[in-house]
Amino acid sequence: MPIITLTTDFGIKDANVASLKAKIYTELSDVTIVDISHEIQPFDIAEGAFIVKNSYKDFPKGTIHILGVDALTNPTKVPIAALIDDHYFITSDNGILSLICSEVTPKELVEIKLPQVQENSVFPTRDLFVPVACHLARGGMLAVVGQKLKSFRELSALRPVIKDNKQIIGTVIYIDNYGNAITNISEKIFEKVGKKRNFRIWHRNQEFTELYRNYSDFVKDFEKEFDYVGKGLALIGSSGYLEIAIYKSNPKSFGAASTLYGLKKGSEIYVEFN
Amino acid sequence: MPIITLTTDFGIKDANVASLKAKIYTELSDVTIVDISHEIQPFDIAEGAFIVKNSYKDFPKGTIHILGVDALTNPTKVPIAALIDDHYFITSDNGILSLICSEVTPKELVEIKLPQVQENSVFPTRDLFVPVACHLARGGMLAVVGQKLKSFRELSALRPVIKDNKQIIGTVIYIDNYGNAITNISEKIFEKVGKKRNFRIWHRNQEFTELYRNYSDFVKDFEKEFDYVGKGLALIGSSGYLEIAIYKSNPKSFGAASTLYGLKKGSEIYVEFN
Amino acid sequence: MPIITLTTDFGIKDANVASLKAKIYTELSDVTIVDISHEIQPFDIAEGAFIVKNSYKDFPKGTIHILGVDALTNPTKVPIAALIDDHYFITSDNGILSLICSEVTPKELVEIKLPQVQENSVFPTRDLFVPVACHLARGGMLAVVGQKLKSFRELSALRPVIKDNKQIIGTVIYIDNYGNAITNISEKIFEKVGKKRNFRIWHRNQEFTELYRNYSDFVKDFEKEFDYVGKGLALIGSSGYLEIAIYKSNPKSFGAASTLYGLKKGSEIYVEFN
Repeated sequence: MPIITLTTDFGIKDANVASLKAKIYTELSDVTIVDISHEIQPFDIAEGAFIVKNSYKDFPKGTIHILGVDALTNPTKVPIAALIDDHYFITSDNGILSLICSEVTPKELVEIKLPQVQENSVFPTRDLFVPVACHLARGGMLAVVGQKLKSFRELSALRPVIKDNKQIIGTVIYIDNYGNAITNISEKIFEKVGKKRNFRIWHRNQEFTELYRNYSDFVKDFEKEFDYVGKGLALIGSSGYLEIAIYKSNPKSFGAASTLYGLKKGSEIYVEFN
Repeated sequence: MPIITLTTDFGIKDANVASLKAKIYTELSDVTIVDISHEIQPFDIAEGAFIVKNSYKDFPKGTIHILGVDALTNPTKVPIAALIDDHYFITSDNGILSLICSEVTPKELVEIKLPQVQENSVFPTRDLFVPVACHLARGGMLAVVGQKLKSFRELSALRPVIKDNKQIIGTVIYIDNYGNAITNISEKIFEKVGKKRNFRIWHRNQEFTELYRNYSDFVKDFEKEFDYVGKGLALIGSSGYLEIAIYKSNPKSFGAASTLYGLKKGSEIYVEFN
Repeated sequence: MPIITLTTDFGIKDANVASLKAKIYTELSDVTIVDISHEIQPFDIAEGAFIVKNSYKDFPKGTIHILGVDALTNPTKVPIAALIDDHYFITSDNGILSLICSEVTPKELVEIKLPQVQENSVFPTRDLFVPVACHLARGGMLAVVGQKLKSFRELSALRPVIKDNKQIIGTVIYIDNYGNAITNISEKIFEKVGKKRNFRIWHRNQEFTELYRNYSDFVKDFEKEFDYVGKGLALIGSSGYLEIAIYKSNPKSFGAASTLYGLKKGSEIYVEFN
């Protein structure tokens, strides 16, 4: 039976996450449920999309992803379900799908219609998304739970600005658990604009002239690893995007890129090639 | 096999939750365990009861709920297990059961006696409650693990005060993940006292003269949804109680009902009908 | 099939924990995964070791423990897998194993070599540790995934200092969810040095002349339990170490040992026998 994943802005203290699982297990006693994250900032679909984009491909094909971030449905934001990249996504049509799957065309897409469920439920993730997920997990077809839709809402993801073919102005889109600041500058764009030229990457008075692919390249000699602790670097992280990091940072004690360099979501990062 | 749920004040960093699961899986390799919440404030049985009350009915009948909040047992607070509303609850007799199941009579109720376990264990949730849960999950009978009890400890839940049949003085009992302030005024009491009269709901200088059943009624025109973001409202939430909410609040950024209106657990909310 | 446990410093918001589970379930659809903790302070192997040490024995023999704390592998910190005390541990050779299993000799120990995986992966917990865990879960042998190693890195755990056979100077090694301060003074050392003599335990101007084995001994009369709430005590906790605790503490409201007595990781605690 396929896995069902949960990504919400519910937090882990309230009863809501348990209610979702209770409803799923009531329908399917031997399904596997995986929490992707429940700590998405309330209503922050960009953050939810970033986290799901970075993990959904690690799941087996056919996995069913419930996205309960800013999920209240209304006449302009209907509940939808899609088959994209061999994964199922169930969400409200708030634009989150376009941020997760910007480069892939949906193979199937429906507006969810469940005759027996109130459309203005205060808890659509439980009342609308869970029944659809269970239906799909049992091998049911998308067409049965809704009406074919032509497209979902498109949000333009914040893209970096490219100037004169030699400058990239990017933006911090996520601060991770280590306080590293991840930008929207992908390795691909960096390579394409840079064409192997020299470069400098900067934010305020912090400047980097190297871009590392992993921490082993940064710390050349691990016998002297301690000399590198607390030093900043620019890195292509596991998400494939340029990030400003501190080697062995700790946001709660001596500091991290976010706290030491004053980086937060929305901060601009500049790259200049010459 | 029935589901076992866990609700504790252990937090998710310490090793305690893992120890509970380890002990359960040691006895039952194919049981399903669901975390309801481990973020209950230490010793706060009212908060634990509120969260369990709002989710236990979503689980299948026969589910076994372990309640490890303020769980240290002692001669005046013995370990108990009960069958109520077709669900099993295992806890110490600290009053939490009366707050969860105030309107239902237990079908069975025992004081747990496990001859092989120290009664003053420093970790009764693991040493006393888990073995009982596993026994029940295997289909065992309650009568085997303890002595019949006539009643459990009654705590009077904080009830709203009704004055002159036209005023309700309620209290905030929970602040949720969105910073919304949930009161102890149920929809039922509101209807009963109000008898469809006009009303105003207030706290300090905040006043509401509408009570919504869902956010769709509040935001009449979703083309103009943005005008409603950050606005306050009074709402009957998914828990069935009156809450003071902010539309699309965020406690960590621009604010929420708790931060903007100075609402916290124990704050009074007034309703006046005329 | 054996259980796989996860202990990391990834936090529960980022996508990393989900990626681990996705990879495991892709290989093994019916395995049981248990989160021990993902809230270890970044790179804090002492904290990770403390939490794993306090819970691994509760799991069945043969359980496979993935330790993703400060896990980046490099030439001086290779990935290793060990069979110790009938449990499997997979980690990088950063010393964490010596802190968890200081008193047991490994039955098997290998340096992990997976020909198809980049050695300097930015995500070794997913790319190196998970495949080894799945191999072991399927009943595979340790020898197949690496080369025999003679020993792992030894870190000397912070040990208490014993002076003149009558004084113990210990250190706080962990602050738990209740704000209690757990020291590195084990009950065994306390008994050995103390030889049933009278003693006083102190930190700054706080002094204790009793050491309790459980809270029931502290609160002699539970009819008067309320008199004890908020009072300090010295206790041998469920971890087997001396801790300074507050009866029914709450770090977020009225206070806890950590906040009221100024205790944090590294604080010294003195015991003097006479």
